[in-house]
Amino acid sequence: MDRNVTRLRGRLAQLGPELRPHLKTCKSPEAARRVMTTAAGPATVSTLKEAEEFAAAGVTDITYAVGITPDKLDRVLALRGAGVDLAVTLDTVVQAQAVAEASRRAGAAIPALIEIDCDGHRSGVLPHDRERLLAIAGALTEAGTLRGVLTHAGDSYGARGDAALRACAEGERASAVAAATILREAGYECPVVSVGSTPTAHFAENLDGVTEVRAGVFVFFDLVMAGIGVCAVDDIAVSVLATVIGHQQEKGWILVDAGWMAMSRDRGTSKQALDQGYGLVCDIDGAPLADLIMVDANQEHGILALRPGSGAVLPDLPIGTRLRILPNHACATGAQHDRYHVLRSDSRDVEAVWPRFGGW
Amino acid sequence: MDRNVTRLRGRLAQLGPELRPHLKTCKSPEAARRVMTTAAGPATVSTLKEAEEFAAAGVTDITYAVGITPDKLDRVLALRGAGVDLAVTLDTVVQAQAVAEASRRAGAAIPALIEIDCDGHRSGVLPHDRERLLAIAGALTEAGTLRGVLTHAGDSYGARGDAALRACAEGERASAVAAATILREAGYECPVVSVGSTPTAHFAENLDGVTEVRAGVFVFFDLVMAGIGVCAVDDIAVSVLATVIGHQQEKGWILVDAGWMAMSRDRGTSKQALDQGYGLVCDIDGAPLADLIMVDANQEHGILALRPGSGAVLPDLPIGTRLRILPNHACATGAQHDRYHVLRSDSRDVEAVWPRFGGW
Repeated sequence: MDRNVTRLRGRLAQLGPELRPHLKTCKSPEAARRVMTTAAGPATVSTLKEAEEFAAAGVTDITYAVGITPDKLDRVLALRGAGVDLAVTLDTVVQAQAVAEASRRAGAAIPALIEIDCDGHRSGVLPHDRERLLAIAGALTEAGTLRGVLTHAGDSYGARGDAALRACAEGERASAVAAATILREAGYECPVVSVGSTPTAHFAENLDGVTEVRAGVFVFFDLVMAGIGVCAVDDIAVSVLATVIGHQQEKGWILVDAGWMAMSRDRGTSKQALDQGYGLVCDIDGAPLADLIMVDANQEHGILALRPGSGAVLPDLPIGTRLRILPNHACATGAQHDRYHVLRSDSRDVEAVWPRFGGW
Repeated sequence: MDRNVTRLRGRLAQLGPELRPHLKTCKSPEAARRVMTTAAGPATVSTLKEAEEFAAAGVTDITYAVGITPDKLDRVLALRGAGVDLAVTLDTVVQAQAVAEASRRAGAAIPALIEIDCDGHRSGVLPHDRERLLAIAGALTEAGTLRGVLTHAGDSYGARGDAALRACAEGERASAVAAATILREAGYECPVVSVGSTPTAHFAENLDGVTEVRAGVFVFFDLVMAGIGVCAVDDIAVSVLATVIGHQQEKGWILVDAGWMAMSRDRGTSKQALDQGYGLVCDIDGAPLADLIMVDANQEHGILALRPGSGAVLPDLPIGTRLRILPNHACATGAQHDRYHVLRSDSRDVEAVWPRFGGW
C-alpha cells in the first residue's frame, strides 16, 4: 500500500497536478491519512456519509464527486458550517438552481464543479456544449460559486494496452481543459480542472491545464487493475483471509469459508483476457498458488479450482489451511468488511486494525 | 414479508416438517422474530457471528450450516456453554475427529450434522457413500453427538418449470432420507433429517422422512426467485430507495444515486429468461415502471434505461424523483446496508428501523 501511494505521488510530482485521492476505496480514516497529501486533504468522496466521517477525522478539503440532489444540500451546508470546504458536483441547470437557492437561503455560497462527460461513460455535460455549460454556470453563480470542472474517464477500465490507456488519459485531460476554456472565455474563473481514474492517473504523459488528479483504487490495487496492466499482482495490497473447509476430490474442488459475502459479487475480470473468477488464491504469505482461483462462490462458501486449461497440479491443502484471496475489485471487496487487519509485507503479525465504515 | 412467512408456514403445516428458517438473509433480530416459529428458534445460520448475534437476542436452537473448521470450535463451545444448542455441520472424518476432540477436551458433546451432497452443487457426502458416512459417524461419536443429516438443493436455483422444481425437491428429500437410513441401519440414532432451499421448500409435494426444512430468502423474495417462478414480483418485500440525479437524454438514460454499493454486484437474473440488470425500477409506492431496469451500475451511480427491445416510453422522472429498486438477490443487497426501514404495504411512513449486522 505504501509503495502504491509513493508511486502515484512520484508521477504527479513530475507532471504537476495535485493528488486529490478518492477515499471511497478505503473508507477508513487510518488508511486515508496514508493516502492524502496532508491530514486535512485534499480528498474526494462518493457519498455524504464519507464526507461526514472523514470530516470528523479532520479532513477539511473535500469534493463530493457524485451528482448532487436538492434534498442533500442541508447536509452539505451543515458540513460547510462546521468549517469543511465541501464542494459538490452537478451537470444540470436544475441542480445549479437548487445549489444557488440553498446558498441564498443559507447566506453562504456552496462551491460546485460542473461534471464533464469525456467518454460517454456515465454522467456529465459534453465538453464542447457551450450553451449548457454557460446555462449551468449562470444559474449556479446567482448565489453559489463555480469551483471548476471535473471529469472521470470511466471507459479507461475497459482500455487495453499502453497506447489505448494513454489515449484515454489525453481524452480526459483535453475534455476538462476544453470545458474550462469555454467557461473562462465567458468570464467565469473556473480555478479547478479535476480529472482522474486510476488507469489514466498512471498513464497520463501530459497533464497541462489540469490542476488536480483523483484516483481511488490505486491505494490497494486489485486483479482488474492488474488485468488492465496498471499494476502487477504483487502490488495488490488487500486480500481476504480464508480457511479450507472441505474438498470434492473427483471434481478438483477445494472449499473455503469465504464466499461472495467476503469477496463481493464483483466479477470484473470476467471480461478481461485472464478471468480470475472470484479471486486469485495465495498462500498465507501472499504468494499466488499456480492457477488456483475461486471459480464459484455461494454466500459463505468459495469453490477453489485450477483455472480451466491449466496444466498445474491441484495443491494439497488440508482442512484448516489458511489462504489469502486477492480480489477482483478492491472497492467492492472492502465494502463487505468492517475493518482492515494491517500487516507488513514480510510478516504474519497483525500490526494494527483499521476500522472502515459503510452506509450513506 | 408477513405474507411470505405465512405462506411457507402454511405449506409446511400441511407437509409435516418443522421450519428452521435461515437467518443469513435478514441478519436482523427484529426480522428474525417474525420469521421463526418461536423467539428461541429453531434457526439456521451461515456464520458464527450470526450465531452469536442471534444468541444474544435470545435464540437458543441454532444450526450452523457451513462446514466447521477446527479453529472455530472454541467459539462453538462458548455458545454452547452459554446455553445455546448450537449444532455444527461437517462432511469429512478430519472435521469429525476435531469435533470429537474438542468435545472430549470440554467434557461436553458438540452435536454435528453430516452434510449430504444431493445434487453435486457444492459440499457434502454422496448419499449412498456408506463407507464415508459410517467413518464420519464413527469418528464423531467418539465424544461428539450425531445430530443428523443436512442437505441443500443448490441446483434448484437453476431449475426451470414446476416439474423440474418438484424433481429437485424430491431429490433433496430422497438423498437426505437415504443417508439417514444408512446411518440408522448401522445403529446411529440420527434424529434430524434437514433439507431446504427456498425453491424446494415451495415446490416439495412430499416430505416423508424429513424432520425440518431450511429456507432463507423467502422472507423477502427477490427477482431471481420471481424468475424461477417461486414468487410474483409483488411478493418482493425489500427494495432500495434511490433518487434521480441526472439524465443522458440522447441515450435514454436516467441516473440515480444508487449503484452497486447499494444494490450489490449480484447479477443473478443474467442467466434467467428475463434479465433484470441490477434491479427492476418501481415508483415510490413500489409499483414497477414498465420495463425500466438498472442496466448498469458504478459504485454510487445507477444507470436506468428501458429493457432492450421494450416498446415502452421512458418515463419523465425529474431530478430529485424518489424510486424503489427491487433487487436480484435479497441476501446480497441486504448485506450492503446496516438497517431496514420498515413500511406497511399501503403506507409511505417508516414504521420502524431494524438494524442488521454483518461480519464474521
